[in-house]
Amino acid sequence: MRDRETKANDDAIAILGGTGDQGLGLALRFAKAGRKVVIGSRKADRAVAAAGEVRHRVPDADVSGFENTEATAKAHIVILSVPFEHTAATVKGVRDALSEGQILVSMAVPLATAVGDGAARTLGIWQGSAAELVKSLAPGGVDVVSAFQNVSAHRLQDLDQPVECDVVISGAKGPREQIMRLCPLVPGLRAVDGGPLSNARIVEEITALLIGMNIRYKLPEGLGIRFTGLPD
Amino acid sequence: MRDRETKANDDAIAILGGTGDQGLGLALRFAKAGRKVVIGSRKADRAVAAAGEVRHRVPDADVSGFENTEATAKAHIVILSVPFEHTAATVKGVRDALSEGQILVSMAVPLATAVGDGAARTLGIWQGSAAELVKSLAPGGVDVVSAFQNVSAHRLQDLDQPVECDVVISGAKGPREQIMRLCPLVPGLRAVDGGPLSNARIVEEITALLIGMNIRYKLPEGLGIRFTGLPD
Repeated sequence: MRDRETKANDDAIAILGGTGDQGLGLALRFAKAGRKVVIGSRKADRAVAAAGEVRHRVPDADVSGFENTEATAKAHIVILSVPFEHTAATVKGVRDALSEGQILVSMAVPLATAVGDGAARTLGIWQGSAAELVKSLAPGGVDVVSAFQNVSAHRLQDLDQPVECDVVISGAKGPREQIMRLCPLVPGLRAVDGGPLSNARIVEEITALLIGMNIRYKLPEGLGIRFTGLPD
Repeated sequence: MRDRETKANDDAIAILGGTGDQGLGLALRFAKAGRKVVIGSRKADRAVAAAGEVRHRVPDADVSGFENTEATAKAHIVILSVPFEHTAATVKGVRDALSEGQILVSMAVPLATAVGDGAARTLGIWQGSAAELVKSLAPGGVDVVSAFQNVSAHRLQDLDQPVECDVVISGAKGPREQIMRLCPLVPGLRAVDGGPLSNARIVEEITALLIGMNIRYKLPEGLGIRFTGLPD
């Protein structure tokens, strides 16, 4: 864990695995909203290429690309958007780049595809959820928040349309509220208070349910979820 | 299991535990839609009293009340609306009253309140879900379908308002589609194809998430859920 003095840029958002469909979608949306975005990847050149793609679609984007550990050190908020089977290794790989007070956001869903089974099913995780697995691997002073699992990559990347989806955000109160404030940056996304991190186990499962529905209803663009009856 | 000859009334809907908040809410709504409703309870007199309450609020209701085994024999569709801790005992109790081809609908959610823990948490069920536990106890020729877990009892009972909620329905195709056709009887309820019964494990967990949100947002009337992007 880095020293507190080298505190990461409070405005920037790092997205590890920002070269993937969902991570790139978030990068596009946050960049379009005017936030500084740092894309991380295992290979720096792939991250640089993804940053170029964001700049191509959002010409005034403040976006750059780096290898994951470098990207991690450049932002206060670090979003993990790697396939579940790479989640633990990615957290272990960036441990030393994390500093106290940073927020690590888990989007991971333990889909059974990680072991060759179907995407509409999940694996049981010893810690209760992928987010709690991430928490178990993160340095002590780093907050882990669960968010964005159920947001369609296709809809994120369709910049002309709002993303009609609620985002259930779980974790300790302070960091949870910081991540909730990211949602209004993306038109159509609404933050819903998901309580403690342990609730991530339910939110992660919903992704598998949505994938099954996408298959049954033949909706490659992907469904979203809304809660009815919430106060405005 | 009863003989095929004594086939239950195809139009009637039996609701075991129809004296509870959610079961009574469904009874009111189905009765208001003109369907014959049979309320079941462990005590016949409580079922008769609940039927009287339905008739009081829906004056032309075709509703009656019976002890659970009698109620079970009177309808093609039998909805289990008892607290989770009574679910297995109720199924065992009505086994001999069930006949081949009947559909048993599980609304059960294994909330941790069953063992004295909180309502925003669930218990792990050996069979995967409460619905699959019901399936494991039901006679072979009886179809088990999972539905209605996330529909607010308060909103069901408020007959002047639509119930803004999607109902994810899981089970084998034929019986699943029969239960999906019940949803349009209740204004605002929409049926969503939830695929095989094993998906009930996710749908049941969503109830615990909604209960936690109801507590955090102080919404005693209860949240609902909608999926965005479904075809009309």
